[in-house]
Amino acid sequence: MTDVPELKLLPIGIDATGSREEFDSLGKVAVPADRYWGAQTERSLLHFDIGGDRMPKAVYRAYGYVKKACALVNAAAGRLPRWKCEAIVRAADEAIAGELDDHFPLFVWQTGSGTQSNMNVNEVLSNRAIQLLGGTLGSQHPIGPNDDVNMGQSSNDTFPAAMHIATVMAIDDQLLPAVRHLADTIEAKAEGWMDVVKIGRTHLEDAVPLTVGQEWYGWAGQIRACIVAVEASRAGLHELAIGGTAVGTGLNAPPGFSNDVAAKVAELTGRPFVTAPNKFAAQGSLDAMVRASAGLRGLAVALMKIANDMRWLASGPRCGLGELKLPANEPGSSIMPGKVNPTQCEAMVMIAIQVLGNDSAVAFAGSQGNFELNAMRPIIINAVLHSIRILADGCDRFREFSVVGTEIVPERIKSYVEGSVMLVTALSPVIGYQNAARIAERAIAEGLTLKQAALASGLVDENLFDQTIRPLAMVGKGLSGA
Amino acid sequence: MTDVPELKLLPIGIDATGSREEFDSLGKVAVPADRYWGAQTERSLLHFDIGGDRMPKAVYRAYGYVKKACALVNAAAGRLPRWKCEAIVRAADEAIAGELDDHFPLFVWQTGSGTQSNMNVNEVLSNRAIQLLGGTLGSQHPIGPNDDVNMGQSSNDTFPAAMHIATVMAIDDQLLPAVRHLADTIEAKAEGWMDVVKIGRTHLEDAVPLTVGQEWYGWAGQIRACIVAVEASRAGLHELAIGGTAVGTGLNAPPGFSNDVAAKVAELTGRPFVTAPNKFAAQGSLDAMVRASAGLRGLAVALMKIANDMRWLASGPRCGLGELKLPANEPGSSIMPGKVNPTQCEAMVMIAIQVLGNDSAVAFAGSQGNFELNAMRPIIINAVLHSIRILADGCDRFREFSVVGTEIVPERIKSYVEGSVMLVTALSPVIGYQNAARIAERAIAEGLTLKQAALASGLVDENLFDQTIRPLAMVGKGLSGA
Amino acid sequence: MTDVPELKLLPIGIDATGSREEFDSLGKVAVPADRYWGAQTERSLLHFDIGGDRMPKAVYRAYGYVKKACALVNAAAGRLPRWKCEAIVRAADEAIAGELDDHFPLFVWQTGSGTQSNMNVNEVLSNRAIQLLGGTLGSQHPIGPNDDVNMGQSSNDTFPAAMHIATVMAIDDQLLPAVRHLADTIEAKAEGWMDVVKIGRTHLEDAVPLTVGQEWYGWAGQIRACIVAVEASRAGLHELAIGGTAVGTGLNAPPGFSNDVAAKVAELTGRPFVTAPNKFAAQGSLDAMVRASAGLRGLAVALMKIANDMRWLASGPRCGLGELKLPANEPGSSIMPGKVNPTQCEAMVMIAIQVLGNDSAVAFAGSQGNFELNAMRPIIINAVLHSIRILADGCDRFREFSVVGTEIVPERIKSYVEGSVMLVTALSPVIGYQNAARIAERAIAEGLTLKQAALASGLVDENLFDQTIRPLAMVGKGLSGA
Amino acid sequence: MTDVPELKLLPIGIDATGSREEFDSLGKVAVPADRYWGAQTERSLLHFDIGGDRMPKAVYRAYGYVKKACALVNAAAGRLPRWKCEAIVRAADEAIAGELDDHFPLFVWQTGSGTQSNMNVNEVLSNRAIQLLGGTLGSQHPIGPNDDVNMGQSSNDTFPAAMHIATVMAIDDQLLPAVRHLADTIEAKAEGWMDVVKIGRTHLEDAVPLTVGQEWYGWAGQIRACIVAVEASRAGLHELAIGGTAVGTGLNAPPGFSNDVAAKVAELTGRPFVTAPNKFAAQGSLDAMVRASAGLRGLAVALMKIANDMRWLASGPRCGLGELKLPANEPGSSIMPGKVNPTQCEAMVMIAIQVLGNDSAVAFAGSQGNFELNAMRPIIINAVLHSIRILADGCDRFREFSVVGTEIVPERIKSYVEGSVMLVTALSPVIGYQNAARIAERAIAEGLTLKQAALASGLVDENLFDQTIRPLAMVGKGLSGA
Repeated sequence: MTDVPELKLLPIGIDATGSREEFDSLGKVAVPADRYWGAQTERSLLHFDIGGDRMPKAVYRAYGYVKKACALVNAAAGRLPRWKCEAIVRAADEAIAGELDDHFPLFVWQTGSGTQSNMNVNEVLSNRAIQLLGGTLGSQHPIGPNDDVNMGQSSNDTFPAAMHIATVMAIDDQLLPAVRHLADTIEAKAEGWMDVVKIGRTHLEDAVPLTVGQEWYGWAGQIRACIVAVEASRAGLHELAIGGTAVGTGLNAPPGFSNDVAAKVAELTGRPFVTAPNKFAAQGSLDAMVRASAGLRGLAVALMKIANDMRWLASGPRCGLGELKLPANEPGSSIMPGKVNPTQCEAMVMIAIQVLGNDSAVAFAGSQGNFELNAMRPIIINAVLHSIRILADGCDRFREFSVVGTEIVPERIKSYVEGSVMLVTALSPVIGYQNAARIAERAIAEGLTLKQAALASGLVDENLFDQTIRPLAMVGKGLSGA
Repeated sequence: MTDVPELKLLPIGIDATGSREEFDSLGKVAVPADRYWGAQTERSLLHFDIGGDRMPKAVYRAYGYVKKACALVNAAAGRLPRWKCEAIVRAADEAIAGELDDHFPLFVWQTGSGTQSNMNVNEVLSNRAIQLLGGTLGSQHPIGPNDDVNMGQSSNDTFPAAMHIATVMAIDDQLLPAVRHLADTIEAKAEGWMDVVKIGRTHLEDAVPLTVGQEWYGWAGQIRACIVAVEASRAGLHELAIGGTAVGTGLNAPPGFSNDVAAKVAELTGRPFVTAPNKFAAQGSLDAMVRASAGLRGLAVALMKIANDMRWLASGPRCGLGELKLPANEPGSSIMPGKVNPTQCEAMVMIAIQVLGNDSAVAFAGSQGNFELNAMRPIIINAVLHSIRILADGCDRFREFSVVGTEIVPERIKSYVEGSVMLVTALSPVIGYQNAARIAERAIAEGLTLKQAALASGLVDENLFDQTIRPLAMVGKGLSGA
Repeated sequence: MTDVPELKLLPIGIDATGSREEFDSLGKVAVPADRYWGAQTERSLLHFDIGGDRMPKAVYRAYGYVKKACALVNAAAGRLPRWKCEAIVRAADEAIAGELDDHFPLFVWQTGSGTQSNMNVNEVLSNRAIQLLGGTLGSQHPIGPNDDVNMGQSSNDTFPAAMHIATVMAIDDQLLPAVRHLADTIEAKAEGWMDVVKIGRTHLEDAVPLTVGQEWYGWAGQIRACIVAVEASRAGLHELAIGGTAVGTGLNAPPGFSNDVAAKVAELTGRPFVTAPNKFAAQGSLDAMVRASAGLRGLAVALMKIANDMRWLASGPRCGLGELKLPANEPGSSIMPGKVNPTQCEAMVMIAIQVLGNDSAVAFAGSQGNFELNAMRPIIINAVLHSIRILADGCDRFREFSVVGTEIVPERIKSYVEGSVMLVTALSPVIGYQNAARIAERAIAEGLTLKQAALASGLVDENLFDQTIRPLAMVGKGLSGA
Repeated sequence: MTDVPELKLLPIGIDATGSREEFDSLGKVAVPADRYWGAQTERSLLHFDIGGDRMPKAVYRAYGYVKKACALVNAAAGRLPRWKCEAIVRAADEAIAGELDDHFPLFVWQTGSGTQSNMNVNEVLSNRAIQLLGGTLGSQHPIGPNDDVNMGQSSNDTFPAAMHIATVMAIDDQLLPAVRHLADTIEAKAEGWMDVVKIGRTHLEDAVPLTVGQEWYGWAGQIRACIVAVEASRAGLHELAIGGTAVGTGLNAPPGFSNDVAAKVAELTGRPFVTAPNKFAAQGSLDAMVRASAGLRGLAVALMKIANDMRWLASGPRCGLGELKLPANEPGSSIMPGKVNPTQCEAMVMIAIQVLGNDSAVAFAGSQGNFELNAMRPIIINAVLHSIRILADGCDRFREFSVVGTEIVPERIKSYVEGSVMLVTALSPVIGYQNAARIAERAIAEGLTLKQAALASGLVDENLFDQTIRPLAMVGKGLSGA
């Protein structure tokens, strides 16, 4: 093209009211004049006006990377004129920055391939690029949504690519920092309480002692293992389907497109994306997303246990376990004055349950693919990004408003250790399990202290008792047991 | 009180900027000056800034009924001055109408009792009533959020009451009309096709014939049974916990409060609400909500089957079953020109899976109660109302944009019936199962028509064959089988 | 037939060793000579040797009723010779009695229609009838498995009928008696403790008092509501698909067969079975089973809450809540002498989780029907009967070995009530919520009793305090709140 | 001990009838005289007679390794006399070999720690060792179940160790070989069909072509990725809790016990077991099991998709897609002669759903830990081993009886490719998407072939058409797309 239009630095926005005519292969459609989207977006808005769930914006930002990378690769190969590429890239950068978010209005419950969201991106980038080049919105000229923005692409390969990119970035940038911060905080608390002996509990029943620090490190250990699993779950997500086009064969994309685009996405995002080695598996399934969701639900399982432990240990203040004191962030009751409740723990428990519910939907949807497509993409990306977001925010709030300010109640902790009879366990290697059992049973039945019952048994003298039943000696060293 | 303030007809809205000081039992808090909410709402916004999930507005509208009913009952009993009652009622009516929605901003992930949403309502109605009475916002005077708006109440009894009211109204007003309309539409289509014989399929394999109308009536029959189940699931929801106050004993509420308030809610809403006979069960559990969710997931299960059947029957157009033709609402592919996809069916399938995921979370949360409270209320009401909404909207869109416009492809339907060998089944009572099986197997193995194979077997003559293998005679009458 | 063979009263059993030849439409198969089953059963055993899960025997016993009813109806209509009918009925009665259980060996993971189990029944009843009539096993003569035992039937209508019958009988005969007995027992315990005041707990935190009896009645109330729901869930199960034959049209069954067989099954079982009004819905879906499973999971949800409450209230004995004392049925620990654990509660919690897992599988499977058949029948009937059985047995053991022997620990219960500050709530209507809150907070912060803090506030004198803070007066009357 | 009893080579078995008296810390219990188990096993049998679910035998075989390793380590450290060690090891070896399976009768639904199964092992090994040493059964002498067999151990650390060992061995020995074999088989089939062009399908609708081999390799690719995930899931399982004893501190176990026993188990089993670095996390959670279950459900998700694809592609034979022909293993219908159904696929789909249901229960149970113990161990190990077994067996049967014998139907496959209009996609880069769309729409609307419609459009001449629309050229090379 000899007559290359100039790229103008126009701000985002369309100074128009009423409606504008757009078209697609089914005909003409009126769209709001101040929006960049085109006919297919408008059709989808009409046909899928279902609930309040919108496709997460993170998908569109990820799509910005896809479209930018494809344009750059297409231009480098001489398939797309440089000036077209520059206009698309400019618009894509705006999408990446979230500046076009208002132009991506579609619902979650739409076509199962995500085609309508892909076309939403194609239409918006097309019109924005047309605007930047001084063309007429809705003309699909000189930048067409299908022929230029979508060049060498299909929804079937770009949507899963965008899903993977959005998920990886949300894990990297939102979830992992929040979870690591929580683990750090728990470990810091644990470190300060490594010598505070407390009663252990198994089956909810009194058991042998450990330290408060050991218990907290136990929680941290659970979280650390979850972090490893979430990190590992990214491996499959780093593989991109882009380059498979419609069914995995790569029809209409040039040789090398898969590798080139994946490399470009990796470069643009700074993450180790590569092309998926088996495009038929990558497009026919959403297995990598199912595995990512499993990482999230593993974290939810651990967080639920931890939040439950914390609220039970803080139960009371007078009629519960009362070993911990959580921060009083708000009045707990509209009727009971002075009541303080473990609300951050409750929120975390509910978040965990929601993540398990989401994960259940993800696994189900993941099983429902057919042939060359799993048409359950929107529900899966929505559920996974939802889980990531509430886990990340939940960890932050939980840490900030509950964990950091949690204190121990030393006198209560100490009184439990002193009152328990389960320390008899340390006598077991000396006098045998059955003899030790009889001492414990007598103590409980007769309301004796362990020492009283032990001496009364005639099997133990005071010296032996005092040498054996030393709580601090019973907790061992560190975290790794005997 | 001799000096009764006058109730002024002020429009909703606070003409102020910046912040206003509010207080609760933990101290003072600055809130946005143009909002009615108070200290506890503001604390919750800060502490529970988690994800984008907000408590559904329907909960607050239902709460409007609760607060109005309580005020009226308290006033009738002389506990609440008439003028206070009138101010609260006025504000409650605005909440019921949704006019105060912007003042109910809380997140789903908050205290498990819903106390913060109850206090949000108390604070907003308090301040709105204070405004109507010419008082000072934030003064809690002359209408206090706890002492007046919450009089005789607790979050522990009002929140589940609001959950039940919101759910019943959403089922009655959103879901059931949409589902009934869908069933009506399917039945109307079925009626027109009661004589169109088509091949039956079991195990995805060719079976004996039925009519298109019978198949569609089968779908309608599933939906009708689901409607009955959803309707029945309201029975438990019609029982309200209000009157149990903090733990079910009714402390601080006057005798008769339970019955009076339930009766008033019934009168105000026009629904058969009654007081729950066992307040300890009503507040310690969320079992009625779990059962309501089961009704919804039953519907989802049926809709998934129906949507799947429709998209499979419409598969093709040339390489699939091709018996149905769904409306072409939008281009199906960004890369494959002319492609049309069963997008409404896909959306419905995803909705169904989401409802099952929600239901799974509801059941889990329902099991996690402790003692006098199940502190998993926000996740449950959010999930149930979400399921209702996407089912209702999904049924409407599915009906409007897919079912209504679905057409049959008569020539394809006919060719299947003519080509199938499974009509041999009608010969079975005449020549025995094993003989009939040999005819069928031969037809398939040798590529014969059923008639060719039957005559070749020597067991059947043409006369017998023609009298026995009459597809229209094989489909019986109506829906009830033999 | 002029030459009617005589029906001999032979005991069950085949006096043979090695193998016997049987045949079906695919050819000959060797089966164990001492078993009644035929070729298709043997094929299934070979092809579906998967795991250790066998189709529950209850299915075959229910099938006995189906086959017996069909034979009687066929004979009454003159389609089946009386002597054939009598032989089939004799064999069916043996199946009903469980006497042929060893001859029904098939795995759960088989054909999705249950055809192989239907054929297993057909083959066993055929051979057993042949034996009774003096014929040759494996000859299919004079009683054929397809033409006689299966006359007018298909797996597609008989298997769901057998599923419904088996489920109804398991609910009626196993589950409901066990659950009612448990509820009775809990109520009897509750009755004895109606005046024992205890501290209430919400959010795990100290709340206002109630009585032990009220708390226990709360549990019973949950269970009673579950019983109603389970009973109601039988309505759909009472509708039988039999008479729809292969696809719902009733092909090869005579007019009236549906009604006649359902009436006969009702008569034989003494339950209100009727024919399903819409056979296409009845065979294309398993929705009634999904709804029955929802009833079971509703019960599981309630039982989980109850078992959790009990084990928490019994936690300790010294470092937990310690309000209850559960029976010590077995030593609790292999290492900690004298430890007693709430093992029945733990088993019940695990049972509840299993039922929820089963239910999740049932709902999923219920959604996977296609066209005229939902081919997920075996997993659904197996899961539902499994849930019923473990719930029934679990309720019995839980009642017998835990609930019956549970005792209260009065001194602990009393000390909590005396120590709690949440009784301040009763002062709220007198001095206002905010004043009451300050008293409670001071008591907790300074370690005062509520009375000390109240008097120190200057807002309450001793007389007022003693008149207001009377725990027994705070618990109200009965179960219905204020 | 100077008087060391001699270890006799007695066969397994007790030549006694009636009952034998055993005892534990709660007293005496009569047990069957011909069984090795003791008092606690008998108590558990009585108290937990729930359903038909028995603790999987694999748990006891794994426990054999634990007990053997502990005895060897204890003996090496001089804590356990060598002759005692030898007797215990002899008995443990019998347990490992499965020879004592009949003596491990306990139910799944028991104490949540698995203590009763640990005691079952302790009792059986104790009595068997006593027998081998010529002692009196039930005397706990000279080998005591607690003091000797359980020396340095608790259920709380040994049961999760046994869970991990059993799971790893089941994955290694049962699951992975079966899944790899299936993947190999699918790849071998794929390889043979790499040049057979077929129509692709997305959204169930006709799409652009690929080859049969590519489609099959897509399935294999899914499975291969699942194998990697399952293998990776063993990492957490290789960490053993043994050495943490009662609460993770290692009380009553000697220094170094953790490492020594883990090393011994690794040596005995030939697997890379190590000691868990954080015993509090290892005993307070079952997170590694939850992650292992996620690996299994990931496989189930993939297998469900594959089995569904296969049965849909084989649907027909005349009224379905008909591209594949599955082996006819058994007659498909009791009423429709000659019917053949995709029964292995159906079984696989049901297995997949069951695994998802199991996994759902595992995740739920995994979240229900409290403090130093997650008392949901029996349900989790039972569910995980169940999933492994049905997946392994299911893969074997599916491969053996369905995949291996599956054939393609070339003429049907070819006719679809020739009939489809979606090959128009290849024209899109030449004439533009919108022009191509109009050609496709016209072909469908007017019943034309793609070529007819393309030529009629005037946009394409025959030469261009023939050069562009070449199916074999459209499928690309290999699996990695463009």
